[in-house]
Parts: sequence; C-alpha cells; structure tokens
Amino acid sequence: MVISAPSGAGKTTICKRLLQTSFSFTYSVSFTTRPPRKNEIEGVDYYFVSREEFERLIKEGGFVEWAEVHGELYGTSKKLLEETIKAKKNVLLEVDVRGGTKIKENYPEAVLIFLLPPSWEELERRLKGRGTEEEKKIQKRIERAKEEVKYASRYDYLVINDDVNRAVEDILSIVKAEALRVKRFSKEEVENFLSPG
Amino acid sequence: MVISAPSGAGKTTICKRLLQTSFSFTYSVSFTTRPPRKNEIEGVDYYFVSREEFERLIKEGGFVEWAEVHGELYGTSKKLLEETIKAKKNVLLEVDVRGGTKIKENYPEAVLIFLLPPSWEELERRLKGRGTEEEKKIQKRIERAKEEVKYASRYDYLVINDDVNRAVEDILSIVKAEALRVKRFSKEEVENFLSPG
Repeated sequence: MVISAPSGAGKTTICKRLLQTSFSFTYSVSFTTRPPRKNEIEGVDYYFVSREEFERLIKEGGFVEWAEVHGELYGTSKKLLEETIKAKKNVLLEVDVRGGTKIKENYPEAVLIFLLPPSWEELERRLKGRGTEEEKKIQKRIERAKEEVKYASRYDYLVINDDVNRAVEDILSIVKAEALRVKRFSKEEVENFLSPG
Repeated sequence: MVISAPSGAGKTTICKRLLQTSFSFTYSVSFTTRPPRKNEIEGVDYYFVSREEFERLIKEGGFVEWAEVHGELYGTSKKLLEETIKAKKNVLLEVDVRGGTKIKENYPEAVLIFLLPPSWEELERRLKGRGTEEEKKIQKRIERAKEEVKYASRYDYLVINDDVNRAVEDILSIVKAEALRVKRFSKEEVENFLSPG
C-alpha cells in the first residue's frame, strides 16, 4: 500500500497511526539525503545517507523509485521492499506523488492512496504550525503541492484528511476491501474456497 | 452494488442487515413468478407476477437481467433501477450469479460482490434448516450452487459468510472503499477538491 500526499497533508501522522492498528503493516523506511529533523531516528523515520552514497545506490539500481524534493533526494530501497513482500507482510510505503506511479508500474498489485488536506488554508496552517521552516520554504511547498495534486487522478483512492481518525478509518476500509478483491485470489483458491462436498 | 450468492449462502439475511445500516441503501425489489413463501410481502420481498406477465415484460425489454432458477423466473426491472439511480441512491441488488455479470455490462460502475457460505456442509445444513423444501430440491440447489461458484471469478469481491456480523462489516468496508476510488470522482472534482488558494 502506497500513501502519497503533498507535504502538510498529514501523511506521517496517518502512517504512524496505521502502524499502531491490528493490521500488522510493515513500514518501508525510505532513504534520504535530507538532514534529520529534531526527534527523527535513523532506520525508523529514514535511513539518512550522504548524496554520494545515494547516487551510488541509484547507479546500482538499488531504488524502486527515487525523487528530488526541495533539493533533497528520497528513495525506496528495492532490496528492503522485496524482503518485506517475501515475508508476506502488508507493506506501507510513504512516497512522493511521482514515486507512487513508478511503484505501480513495477508492482501492479500495489494499492495507491492519495491523501489530501481539507483545504489550501489548512495546509498552510499545518506547515506553519510545524515551526521547522521559514516562510519562503513554506510558500515553495504550497506551490509544489498544487502541482502534486494533479497526480491524484493516477492513484486508486482519494482520502481527505480533515480528521485523522476518519482518514485512518477510510484507509483501513480500503485495506479490508482490497483484501477481498477477487483478483487477490487465484482461480484455484476461489473454486476451492468451499471444500468439495 | 450487486450481491450474488448460491442459495443458502445467507444473501437475504445479509441484505436485510445492510438495509438497516446508516448507508441508506435502497433495495431494488425483483420480479418473480415463484409463489410467495410464508411471511414474504408483495413489493417488499418481490413483485410476484404470473408467468404470462413476466414474459410480456421480457418482450418489452423491461428487465436489465432475468433468469430462470429452479423452474421459476426472476428479473430486475429496468424502470425501477433507473429511477433509483436517478435519485442518486445506493442501490442494493440481489441477483442470480449470471445476472450480476449482465448488470456489469450495462452499468460498468456497478460493484459486484459474491457471497459464499463457509463450506458445503454448512450450506446443506442451512438449506435443511429452512424447513421449506424437500430433500430432492435441496440436492438440486446444492448441485446448482457448485455450478454457480464458478462465476465468482467474474465478480469484483468475494465475501465469506461464516459470521453474519463480519460479512456485513466486510461489505460495508467495500462500500466505503469504493466511494473513495479515484474513478468515482470526475477530473474536475479531484482538482477542485482543494479550493484554489
């Protein structure tokens, strides 16, 4: 399951809440060249690497998707993702809006969710509330968010984060419903669902 | 939303429960030539009509789908269905497994759910528990059910009715998730979701 959103839509909060549910998601930690924010932990929030290291990984084909966002590099490790899928875990990915469509190309069974803030005003309020960035950077994020929303139509689902509890519930409904899709079962599984009488 | 199932899977119970939820479904009452069972009400459970009347409606193109099941005719009125869709209501249809795929052809936005009993043994137990039919008829229903299960792969979702509460919850998750699918929104709606800043 891939969750994308303009920054400030509440993606990180939602993902943390999802990890606390009984759905046993495994969060796929991204790599980034961005310096850690206060309270961010190596290997939990991100793997923080140098630009040189990141570029080496790109050359080696180590990323399923990577993107430059606000001058910093972010990427999803192919090795980590494959290991988690092999372990048959529900993988939760938090990626850039362009990254989501790249993942779908390689993993057609991926479920893409686009998270939206309830309004531009609320998005601005949230970005300012973080208190970690200056006005110029915030305006840049908002400009980018307007571009990013255009990618929503390539996603599978649209969830509005006007209330964290409701957004989490919406996402859990999507997860439950997706698990019931006929295409998730093999033909054999469907026909043997009822043990032969 | 179309729910199909082999008879005895608990389709009618599930549909009744769904109508009691807050999702404001409108049940599309089918036409049938089958005589009413004890407690069945005209216009609520079915519109009970003669074979002559039913055949006249077929000729007039009055059914979205119709089928002969155990020697009796069942059909979904095109007029009633269109009226409900126009009123923008969530329509709940309970149709034969062949009928579901016919409805999808005419209404691609339809969501098809296939309901399964947990096992053949349980199906037989439920059919006998009804106490309305003789052994020969029950065996005929079971034979038919085995044929019907083959249609499951043409449906969108598979729900196992091992517990009514859980099956209803599963279906409500599907309804919630389907309402969040990007394809349910127009391009305009997606882009205007955030009022322009």
